[in-house]
Amino acid sequence: MTYLRNAWYAAGWASDLGDELIGRTLLELPVLLYRDANGKAIATGDRCPHRFAPLHRGRKVDGVIECGYHGIRFDERGKCVLVPGDEERAARNMRIPAYPLEERDGVLWIWLGSAEPDRAALPDLSDRLSNPKFRAVTGSMTVRANYELLADNLIDPSHGQFLHGDLLRRDGFFDVPHNVSQSGTTVSSERVIRDTVAPAAYAMFLADPAAPVDWWTRAQWDPPGIFRLDNGVTPCGADRDAGVRRCGVHLITPETATSTHYFFAAVRNYRLDDAAADEASRSWQQTVFQEQDRPMLEAVQAMMGTADFASLHPVLTAGDRPAMRIRTTMRRLIEAELI
Amino acid sequence: MTYLRNAWYAAGWASDLGDELIGRTLLELPVLLYRDANGKAIATGDRCPHRFAPLHRGRKVDGVIECGYHGIRFDERGKCVLVPGDEERAARNMRIPAYPLEERDGVLWIWLGSAEPDRAALPDLSDRLSNPKFRAVTGSMTVRANYELLADNLIDPSHGQFLHGDLLRRDGFFDVPHNVSQSGTTVSSERVIRDTVAPAAYAMFLADPAAPVDWWTRAQWDPPGIFRLDNGVTPCGADRDAGVRRCGVHLITPETATSTHYFFAAVRNYRLDDAAADEASRSWQQTVFQEQDRPMLEAVQAMMGTADFASLHPVLTAGDRPAMRIRTTMRRLIEAELI
Amino acid sequence: MTYLRNAWYAAGWASDLGDELIGRTLLELPVLLYRDANGKAIATGDRCPHRFAPLHRGRKVDGVIECGYHGIRFDERGKCVLVPGDEERAARNMRIPAYPLEERDGVLWIWLGSAEPDRAALPDLSDRLSNPKFRAVTGSMTVRANYELLADNLIDPSHGQFLHGDLLRRDGFFDVPHNVSQSGTTVSSERVIRDTVAPAAYAMFLADPAAPVDWWTRAQWDPPGIFRLDNGVTPCGADRDAGVRRCGVHLITPETATSTHYFFAAVRNYRLDDAAADEASRSWQQTVFQEQDRPMLEAVQAMMGTADFASLHPVLTAGDRPAMRIRTTMRRLIEAELI
Repeated sequence: MTYLRNAWYAAGWASDLGDELIGRTLLELPVLLYRDANGKAIATGDRCPHRFAPLHRGRKVDGVIECGYHGIRFDERGKCVLVPGDEERAARNMRIPAYPLEERDGVLWIWLGSAEPDRAALPDLSDRLSNPKFRAVTGSMTVRANYELLADNLIDPSHGQFLHGDLLRRDGFFDVPHNVSQSGTTVSSERVIRDTVAPAAYAMFLADPAAPVDWWTRAQWDPPGIFRLDNGVTPCGADRDAGVRRCGVHLITPETATSTHYFFAAVRNYRLDDAAADEASRSWQQTVFQEQDRPMLEAVQAMMGTADFASLHPVLTAGDRPAMRIRTTMRRLIEAELI
Repeated sequence: MTYLRNAWYAAGWASDLGDELIGRTLLELPVLLYRDANGKAIATGDRCPHRFAPLHRGRKVDGVIECGYHGIRFDERGKCVLVPGDEERAARNMRIPAYPLEERDGVLWIWLGSAEPDRAALPDLSDRLSNPKFRAVTGSMTVRANYELLADNLIDPSHGQFLHGDLLRRDGFFDVPHNVSQSGTTVSSERVIRDTVAPAAYAMFLADPAAPVDWWTRAQWDPPGIFRLDNGVTPCGADRDAGVRRCGVHLITPETATSTHYFFAAVRNYRLDDAAADEASRSWQQTVFQEQDRPMLEAVQAMMGTADFASLHPVLTAGDRPAMRIRTTMRRLIEAELI
Repeated sequence: MTYLRNAWYAAGWASDLGDELIGRTLLELPVLLYRDANGKAIATGDRCPHRFAPLHRGRKVDGVIECGYHGIRFDERGKCVLVPGDEERAARNMRIPAYPLEERDGVLWIWLGSAEPDRAALPDLSDRLSNPKFRAVTGSMTVRANYELLADNLIDPSHGQFLHGDLLRRDGFFDVPHNVSQSGTTVSSERVIRDTVAPAAYAMFLADPAAPVDWWTRAQWDPPGIFRLDNGVTPCGADRDAGVRRCGVHLITPETATSTHYFFAAVRNYRLDDAAADEASRSWQQTVFQEQDRPMLEAVQAMMGTADFASLHPVLTAGDRPAMRIRTTMRRLIEAELI
């Protein structure tokens, strides 16, 4: 499959990369993730060019990677520094790809393209992931569905009325305008329902669950797979920060044409230092993603098989506007890269 | 794979379709089965034309189907009656296929072809499934083998001498004529062994298991996948109804090129109101199909891989006559449909 | 995949073939193994030519094989001797392949080619498997990797320094010459490390584990898949038989393009009649093959997918010389067979 390559993708949460070697397929490429002797996160190819052993089955020796099969070693720039029994070979053209990797806001950002990495374009999620007014709880899973199906899902809060109806259903959701806008390559989708009763997902955190509130649900996408969600309820007319607010970050990175790495952070503005609230956040993700979104996304992928989305002639609706803008923007960016 | 389409296929047993939604692949088509507000059985496509969600993951609301992903609703004729947030779209050309479905003799008969359904051709199994002189116990399973392999198996009672030898083996089986006949598109296969000792499968139901009996075994096929079996033993010279008689109905419907839905009814003329006899019938099906036929059929399919039957140059024998007539008849019917 | 066919392959250990029928895929051919009435090991095709049932699901009757589906019988030469209900057919051209099979040194050697079997070329492993100075413990497994990946592994003792480093690692291993030689189609690979300390795998069997020893590791290959290993330690300058010596026999036979039957014998020259030592041999195989080699080989195969080895441009090293000689020799033999 053709992916957008010259872009920063999430390779994982920094906190999940400790002293071990992690092998992860990203954009169909085998990638090795580890920390060097100074703790700096490193990404290289995961396939030994000698006999194709996965390097993550090896070990770290003096800060470099030793293949677990024949002991060939590679440094953090991908250069071969030792071939046991063949010193000449080590000095010559054996190497693995080295991928630019940046650790920022707790995210490992990887650059898999052939162009120079654009460090100025490194995503900034500090307002959500490193902001004292929020508490973030992170997690990840791999979903057996194409990344575009995940993007369709994340940009579209309306599916919450059905797939997560037990938590989010409220009459009137579809009576308010669906504001869709695009600025450059940023796409956003928003609905605000004023003077309503908080849906179950929020009501449990309110002193008076029956009190009238303004409820908003907002999703913003930036390429290639960065979603900033902003959902919550606040007393009618009050500032959003005065209410129950969730500013989740969701990062998707293709694994293969039919599977996607999904890294998410539940970000809340209440009970910041409360382990029980952390646990509730995790439990919410479990219910919402594992039991509701994921089975649906995988069922849709199974229905589609390996067919291209357009070839199946989807009947689009007004609610698909933000998803189509994402698809169109991605297509345009990918085509620009191929020229 | 090319299937015969303009024909009535079994979609399931009516008694297995309650208040829930059932998704079932028939002839490689995703089909949704449910009952409307009046209890009438309905069949439509199972794939939402919007984003390809399986509709059986949704729910019934006021007798229509609501997709579990975005809440789009379809009525029993496949017409879209609601698109949340996009009333115009609902009024236009969004629809799913509606498949004629008839409930008769406890069978859900579905018509998947493009021609008008031929209701006069609806199979009549009342003499077996709605006959006070018989008791029917139904069941179903999916077998990972092409439907033609199941047809080969069901039309050929001789395999019982080996695959079910523990229950049916008797010397002399192959000494009597194998009567094969065809009338129109109906194929039948019969053997009668007179003045013999009942095989184990029947002996246990006789007052005197060692008494001489006439034993018959008959199978009749009608397209596309309807098998009427008739097996039993009776005192020498007596009417068949005077003995232990089993008039099973076996219905096969292709799921994919290498898997088949198999709906069967064990039909007996003894101990009609006896729960223990019902249980014995179920147990027999379990032993015979699950432990003997099914593993063999799936092993044969695995041996064949995706190769066409003829391309493997089977060495046919006299016993294959009825199976070959079925294959030839089906081929002729399929070709007629393609013209 | 194209295999060398006119050669003796191991079909299994003779001791593993008792009274039952064994179905085994060799070089992508379905093979049936059994013993006739005299206990002679027989190999024929495993696919009934009638309806493609696997014959190993049948049974032995009077020394011939009866298909479990329709009762067709085949003798040890593959000739059909009975078709129930169709005597004429049995007399005509129904048959299954009969494969020459020889039992020697406890190995079942099978000839799958179309040329006359070359009995003079039957491998002789008596010096290891039927030699009173050795004790052999046999085992087998199927590895989901191409046979060439297993050959690469077995001919190359250097991988022991990494993949089996816990048992075999010693500084100095790569400081001694790696002697690679070829004589006809026999390829060998050897290293001798003199005046060293025994690695863990041997030290546990020495009276003084810290005493200086000579350590050697030797592997010899003969086509198509016969490996004679010879590894051990002996007091400095002493004869190899005076030390702890292991003369393993490893036989590989392709199952499919991506899976291989691996039959191995651990052969030792110490504690010959010691059940605990037998158990230690088995445990060693378990650790070394099951937990170390096999996962690595299967991971390499997964990394390669279905790509051809050369198409992935492996970067070869000095240590690959014996493996490349095997690959080259096999290619030459296969090409000679195709002319």
